[in-house]
Amino acid sequence: MPKINLATVPVKTGSIYPAPYAEMMVGRSSLRLGDAGGLTQFGVNLVTLEPGAVASLRHWHLKEDEFAIVLEGDLILVEDEGETPMRPGDCAAWKAGVANGHRFVNRSDHPARFLVVGSKDPEEVASYSDVDMKIHMNRGKPRFTYRDDTDWAGSR
Amino acid sequence: MPKINLATVPVKTGSIYPAPYAEMMVGRSSLRLGDAGGLTQFGVNLVTLEPGAVASLRHWHLKEDEFAIVLEGDLILVEDEGETPMRPGDCAAWKAGVANGHRFVNRSDHPARFLVVGSKDPEEVASYSDVDMKIHMNRGKPRFTYRDDTDWAGSR
Repeated sequence: MPKINLATVPVKTGSIYPAPYAEMMVGRSSLRLGDAGGLTQFGVNLVTLEPGAVASLRHWHLKEDEFAIVLEGDLILVEDEGETPMRPGDCAAWKAGVANGHRFVNRSDHPARFLVVGSKDPEEVASYSDVDMKIHMNRGKPRFTYRDDTDWAGSR
Repeated sequence: MPKINLATVPVKTGSIYPAPYAEMMVGRSSLRLGDAGGLTQFGVNLVTLEPGAVASLRHWHLKEDEFAIVLEGDLILVEDEGETPMRPGDCAAWKAGVANGHRFVNRSDHPARFLVVGSKDPEEVASYSDVDMKIHMNRGKPRFTYRDDTDWAGSR
Protein backbone atom coordinates (compact mmCIF):
# COMPACT_ATOMS: atom_id res chain seq x y z
CA MET A 1 0.00 0.00 0.00
CA PRO A 2 1.88 3.12 -1.20
CA LYS A 3 0.14 5.43 1.29
CA ILE A 4 2.93 6.66 3.55
CA ASN A 5 2.34 6.31 7.29
CA LEU A 6 3.69 9.68 8.42
CA ALA A 7 3.74 8.57 12.05
CA THR A 8 6.48 6.05 11.27
CA VAL A 9 8.75 8.36 9.25
CA PRO A 10 11.81 9.44 11.29
CA VAL A 11 11.81 13.13 12.25
CA LYS A 12 15.08 14.61 11.03
CA THR A 13 16.56 17.52 13.00
CA GLY A 14 19.99 19.10 13.06
CA SER A 15 22.00 20.21 10.05
CA ILE A 16 24.99 19.11 8.01
CA TYR A 17 26.18 22.75 7.84
CA PRO A 18 29.51 23.46 9.54
CA ALA A 19 29.61 25.80 12.55
CA PRO A 20 28.44 28.49 13.03
CA TYR A 21 25.63 27.79 10.53
CA ALA A 22 24.33 24.47 11.86
CA GLU A 23 23.06 26.02 15.08
CA MET A 24 21.11 28.61 13.08
CA MET A 25 18.85 25.77 11.88
CA VAL A 26 17.34 25.18 15.33
CA GLY A 27 13.56 24.88 15.13
CA ARG A 28 13.59 23.16 11.77
CA SER A 29 12.62 19.50 11.36
CA SER A 30 11.71 17.40 8.38
CA LEU A 31 10.29 14.10 7.19
CA ARG A 32 11.99 12.54 4.17
CA LEU A 33 8.84 11.34 2.48
CA GLY A 34 10.41 10.34 -0.82
CA ASP A 35 12.92 8.13 0.95
CA ALA A 36 10.15 6.73 3.16
CA GLY A 37 8.21 5.79 0.02
CA GLY A 38 11.22 4.11 -1.57
CA LEU A 39 11.75 6.79 -4.24
CA THR A 40 15.24 7.42 -5.59
CA GLN A 41 14.76 9.75 -8.58
CA PHE A 42 13.81 12.88 -6.64
CA GLY A 43 13.61 13.93 -3.01
CA VAL A 44 10.42 15.00 -1.23
CA ASN A 45 10.76 16.56 2.22
CA LEU A 46 8.01 17.80 4.53
CA VAL A 47 9.63 20.60 6.50
CA THR A 48 8.28 22.13 9.72
CA LEU A 49 9.56 25.51 10.91
CA GLU A 50 8.83 26.60 14.45
CA PRO A 51 8.32 30.34 15.07
CA GLY A 52 11.59 32.11 14.33
CA ALA A 53 13.13 29.18 12.46
CA VAL A 54 14.70 29.22 9.01
CA ALA A 55 14.75 26.35 6.52
CA SER A 56 18.29 26.85 5.25
CA LEU A 57 20.90 29.40 4.38
CA ARG A 58 19.97 31.28 1.23
CA HIS A 59 21.15 29.00 -1.60
CA TRP A 60 20.73 27.98 -5.23
CA HIS A 61 21.34 24.67 -7.00
CA LEU A 62 23.61 24.26 -9.99
CA LYS A 63 22.06 21.11 -11.48
CA GLU A 64 18.90 20.34 -9.52
CA ASP A 65 15.42 21.75 -10.12
CA GLU A 66 13.52 22.60 -6.91
CA PHE A 67 9.82 23.12 -6.15
CA ALA A 68 7.96 24.01 -2.94
CA ILE A 69 4.37 24.39 -1.79
CA VAL A 70 3.33 25.89 1.54
CA LEU A 71 0.96 23.58 3.41
CA GLU A 72 0.39 25.33 6.74
CA GLY A 73 1.08 28.67 8.40
CA ASP A 74 2.73 31.82 7.15
CA LEU A 75 6.20 31.89 5.65
CA ILE A 76 8.45 34.47 4.06
CA LEU A 77 10.36 33.54 0.92
CA VAL A 78 13.65 35.47 0.85
CA GLU A 79 15.40 35.84 -2.49
CA ASP A 80 17.76 38.18 -4.33
CA GLU A 81 14.87 40.46 -5.25
CA GLY A 82 13.50 40.73 -1.72
CA GLU A 83 10.81 39.06 0.37
CA THR A 84 7.52 37.43 -0.61
CA PRO A 85 4.86 36.33 1.90
CA MET A 86 3.76 32.75 1.23
CA ARG A 87 0.56 31.19 2.52
CA PRO A 88 -0.94 27.68 2.28
CA GLY A 89 -1.34 26.74 -1.37
CA ASP A 90 1.33 29.16 -2.57
CA CYS A 91 3.99 27.53 -4.75
CA ALA A 92 7.45 28.43 -5.98
CA ALA A 93 9.89 26.85 -8.42
CA TRP A 94 13.63 27.34 -8.92
CA LYS A 95 15.20 26.17 -12.15
CA ALA A 96 18.62 24.57 -11.80
CA GLY A 97 21.50 26.92 -12.52
CA VAL A 98 19.64 30.18 -11.87
CA ALA A 99 21.74 32.06 -9.32
CA ASN A 100 18.85 33.38 -7.21
CA GLY A 101 19.54 32.41 -3.62
CA HIS A 102 16.37 31.55 -1.72
CA ARG A 103 15.14 30.31 1.62
CA PHE A 104 12.00 30.16 3.74
CA VAL A 105 11.83 31.83 7.15
CA ASN A 106 9.02 31.71 9.70
CA ARG A 107 8.56 35.10 11.35
CA SER A 108 5.07 34.26 12.60
CA ASP A 109 4.11 33.09 16.09
CA HIS A 110 2.86 29.67 14.97
CA PRO A 111 4.52 26.67 13.27
CA ALA A 112 4.57 26.53 9.48
CA ARG A 113 5.05 23.67 7.08
CA PHE A 114 6.02 23.26 3.46
CA LEU A 115 6.69 20.41 1.05
CA VAL A 116 9.84 20.67 -1.05
CA VAL A 117 10.81 18.55 -4.05
CA GLY A 118 14.28 18.40 -5.60
CA SER A 119 16.02 16.39 -8.29
CA LYS A 120 18.84 14.07 -7.27
CA ASP A 121 21.91 14.76 -9.36
CA PRO A 122 24.86 12.48 -8.52
CA GLU A 123 27.24 15.46 -8.53
CA GLU A 124 25.44 18.55 -7.29
CA VAL A 125 26.81 21.92 -6.21
CA ALA A 126 24.83 24.46 -4.21
CA SER A 127 26.06 27.98 -3.55
CA TYR A 128 25.16 30.13 -0.55
CA SER A 129 24.30 33.72 -1.36
CA ASP A 130 25.05 35.39 1.97
CA VAL A 131 28.06 33.32 3.04
CA ASP A 132 31.39 32.48 1.35
CA MET A 133 30.51 28.78 1.08
CA LYS A 134 29.48 26.08 -1.36
CA ILE A 135 28.41 22.47 -0.88
CA HIS A 136 29.53 19.78 -3.30
CA MET A 137 27.36 16.65 -3.10
CA ASN A 138 28.96 13.54 -4.57
CA ARG A 139 26.50 10.65 -4.57
CA GLY A 140 25.01 11.86 -1.31
CA LYS A 141 28.34 12.69 0.39
CA PRO A 142 28.71 16.39 1.22
CA ARG A 143 31.90 18.47 1.03
CA PHE A 144 31.92 22.15 1.98
CA THR A 145 34.27 24.65 0.32
CA TYR A 146 34.66 28.38 -0.01
CA ARG A 147 33.29 29.92 -3.20
CA ASP A 148 36.73 29.49 -4.80
CA ASP A 149 36.38 25.71 -4.26
CA THR A 150 39.16 25.49 -1.65
CA ASP A 151 38.32 23.33 1.35
CA TRP A 152 36.22 24.87 4.10
CA ALA A 153 38.24 25.74 7.20
CA GLY A 154 35.87 27.96 9.13
CA SER A 155 33.96 31.16 8.54
CA ARG A 156 36.02 33.90 6.86
CA MET B 1 10.43 36.03 -8.41
CA PRO B 2 10.00 32.22 -8.34
CA LYS B 3 6.60 32.37 -6.60
CA ILE B 4 4.16 30.96 -9.16
CA ASN B 5 1.09 33.05 -9.87
CA LEU B 6 -1.53 30.30 -9.96
CA ALA B 7 -4.11 32.63 -11.52
CA THR B 8 -2.03 32.83 -14.70
CA VAL B 9 -1.35 29.10 -15.11
CA PRO B 10 -3.49 27.59 -17.89
CA VAL B 11 -6.19 25.20 -16.66
CA LYS B 12 -5.73 21.93 -18.52
CA THR B 13 -8.82 19.79 -19.14
CA GLY B 14 -9.50 16.89 -21.47
CA SER B 15 -7.35 13.78 -21.87
CA ILE B 16 -4.90 12.25 -24.33
CA TYR B 17 -6.52 8.84 -23.78
CA PRO B 18 -8.18 7.32 -26.85
CA ALA B 19 -11.96 6.74 -26.85
CA PRO B 20 -13.77 5.50 -24.86
CA TYR B 21 -11.42 6.41 -22.00
CA ALA B 22 -10.96 10.12 -22.63
CA GLU B 23 -14.57 10.93 -21.81
CA MET B 24 -14.25 9.11 -18.49
CA MET B 25 -11.90 11.91 -17.36
CA VAL B 26 -14.65 14.55 -17.31
CA GLY B 27 -14.50 16.59 -14.10
CA ARG B 28 -10.73 16.49 -13.87
CA SER B 29 -8.60 19.58 -14.44
CA SER B 30 -5.00 20.40 -13.67
CA LEU B 31 -2.39 23.12 -13.48
CA ARG B 32 1.08 22.20 -14.70
CA LEU B 33 3.00 23.99 -11.99
CA GLY B 34 6.43 22.60 -12.80
CA ASP B 35 6.13 23.74 -16.40
CA ALA B 36 4.80 27.11 -15.23
CA GLY B 37 7.89 27.50 -13.05
CA GLY B 38 10.25 26.60 -15.88
CA LEU B 39 11.23 23.20 -14.44
CA THR B 40 12.25 20.40 -16.79
CA GLN B 41 13.64 17.65 -14.55
CA PHE B 42 10.34 16.57 -12.99
CA GLY B 43 6.67 17.37 -13.45
CA VAL B 44 4.43 18.88 -10.76
CA ASN B 45 0.69 18.97 -11.41
CA LEU B 46 -2.05 20.37 -9.18
CA VAL B 47 -5.10 18.24 -10.01
CA THR B 48 -8.71 19.10 -9.14
CA LEU B 49 -11.36 16.39 -9.19
CA GLU B 50 -15.01 17.40 -9.14
CA PRO B 51 -17.44 15.08 -7.32
CA GLY B 52 -17.54 11.78 -9.20
CA ALA B 53 -14.39 12.46 -11.19
CA VAL B 54 -11.35 10.20 -11.53
CA ALA B 55 -7.77 11.31 -12.04
CA SER B 56 -6.75 8.63 -14.52
CA LEU B 57 -7.15 5.02 -15.46
CA ARG B 58 -5.44 2.77 -12.96
CA HIS B 59 -1.79 2.72 -14.11
CA TRP B 60 1.85 2.19 -13.11
CA HIS B 61 5.05 3.67 -14.51
CA LEU B 62 7.96 1.59 -15.76
CA LYS B 63 10.75 4.15 -15.30
CA GLU B 64 9.31 7.14 -13.47
CA ASP B 65 8.95 7.58 -9.71
CA GLU B 66 5.67 9.23 -8.65
CA PHE B 67 4.58 11.01 -5.45
CA ALA B 68 1.27 12.60 -4.43
CA ILE B 69 -0.10 14.59 -1.50
CA VAL B 70 -3.77 15.35 -0.95
CA LEU B 71 -4.34 19.08 -0.40
CA GLU B 72 -8.12 19.41 -0.16
CA GLY B 73 -11.21 17.23 0.15
CA ASP B 74 -11.64 13.49 0.40
CA LEU B 75 -10.20 11.06 -2.12
CA ILE B 76 -10.01 7.32 -2.53
CA LEU B 77 -6.75 5.76 -3.65
CA VAL B 78 -7.51 2.62 -5.67
CA GLU B 79 -4.74 0.06 -6.08
CA ASP B 80 -4.22 -3.66 -6.60
CA GLU B 81 -4.72 -4.33 -2.88
CA GLY B 82 -7.94 -2.36 -2.64
CA GLU B 83 -9.04 1.12 -1.61
CA THR B 84 -7.52 3.61 0.85
CA PRO B 85 -9.27 6.82 1.97
CA MET B 86 -6.94 9.81 1.62
CA ARG B 87 -7.42 13.15 3.38
CA PRO B 88 -5.51 16.45 3.28
CA GLY B 89 -1.91 15.86 4.29
CA ASP B 90 -1.97 12.19 3.33
CA CYS B 91 0.86 11.19 0.99
CA ALA B 92 1.63 8.25 -1.29
CA ALA B 93 4.65 7.21 -3.33
CA TRP B 94 5.02 4.75 -6.19
CA LYS B 95 8.47 3.49 -7.10
CA ALA B 96 9.14 3.13 -10.81
CA GLY B 97 8.70 -0.39 -12.11
CA VAL B 98 6.43 -1.67 -9.34
CA ALA B 99 3.37 -3.09 -11.11
CA ASN B 100 0.75 -1.77 -8.69
CA GLY B 101 -1.84 0.11 -10.75
CA HIS B 102 -3.18 3.15 -8.90
CA ARG B 103 -5.51 6.10 -9.32
CA PHE B 104 -7.41 8.66 -7.28
CA VAL B 105 -11.20 8.90 -7.43
CA ASN B 106 -13.47 11.45 -5.81
CA ARG B 107 -16.63 9.80 -4.48
CA SER B 108 -17.46 12.72 -2.17
CA ASP B 109 -19.93 15.53 -2.83
CA HIS B 110 -17.29 18.29 -2.87
CA PRO B 111 -14.24 19.01 -5.03
CA ALA B 112 -10.91 17.53 -4.04
CA ARG B 113 -7.37 18.46 -4.95
CA PHE B 114 -3.99 16.79 -4.90
CA LEU B 115 -0.44 17.60 -5.97
CA VAL B 116 1.40 14.96 -7.99
CA VAL B 117 5.10 14.83 -8.83
CA GLY B 118 6.69 12.57 -11.43
CA SER B 119 10.11 12.10 -12.98
CA LYS B 120 10.52 12.85 -16.67
CA ASP B 121 12.11 9.92 -18.43
CA PRO B 122 12.69 10.51 -22.16
CA GLU B 123 11.30 7.06 -22.98
CA GLU B 124 8.60 6.13 -20.50
CA VAL B 125 6.03 3.33 -20.60
CA ALA B 126 2.94 3.23 -18.42
CA SER B 127 0.66 0.22 -18.21
CA TYR B 128 -3.06 0.27 -17.41
CA SER B 129 -4.20 -2.34 -14.94
CA ASP B 130 -7.88 -2.60 -15.87
CA VAL B 131 -7.63 -2.11 -19.64
CA ASP B 132 -5.59 -3.86 -22.36
CA MET B 133 -3.53 -0.73 -23.06
CA LYS B 134 -0.11 0.85 -22.58
CA ILE B 135 1.23 4.31 -23.29
CA HIS B 136 4.74 4.80 -24.68
CA MET B 137 6.03 8.34 -24.18
CA ASN B 138 8.94 9.26 -26.42
CA ARG B 139 10.29 12.70 -25.47
CA GLY B 140 6.79 13.89 -24.65
CA LYS B 141 5.07 12.30 -27.67
CA PRO B 142 2.49 9.64 -26.69
CA ARG B 143 1.76 6.39 -28.53
CA PHE B 144 -0.90 3.97 -27.30
CA THR B 145 -0.61 0.21 -27.79
CA TYR B 146 -2.19 -2.95 -26.48
CA ARG B 147 -0.28 -4.77 -23.74
CA ASP B 148 1.47 -6.84 -26.43
CA ASP B 149 2.90 -3.57 -27.85
CA THR B 150 0.89 -3.70 -31.09
CA ASP B 151 -0.65 -0.38 -32.13
CA TRP B 152 -3.89 0.61 -30.47
CA ALA B 153 -6.91 0.22 -32.76
CA GLY B 154 -9.80 0.55 -30.35
CA SER B 155 -10.99 -1.15 -27.20
CA ARG B 156 -10.82 -4.95 -27.34
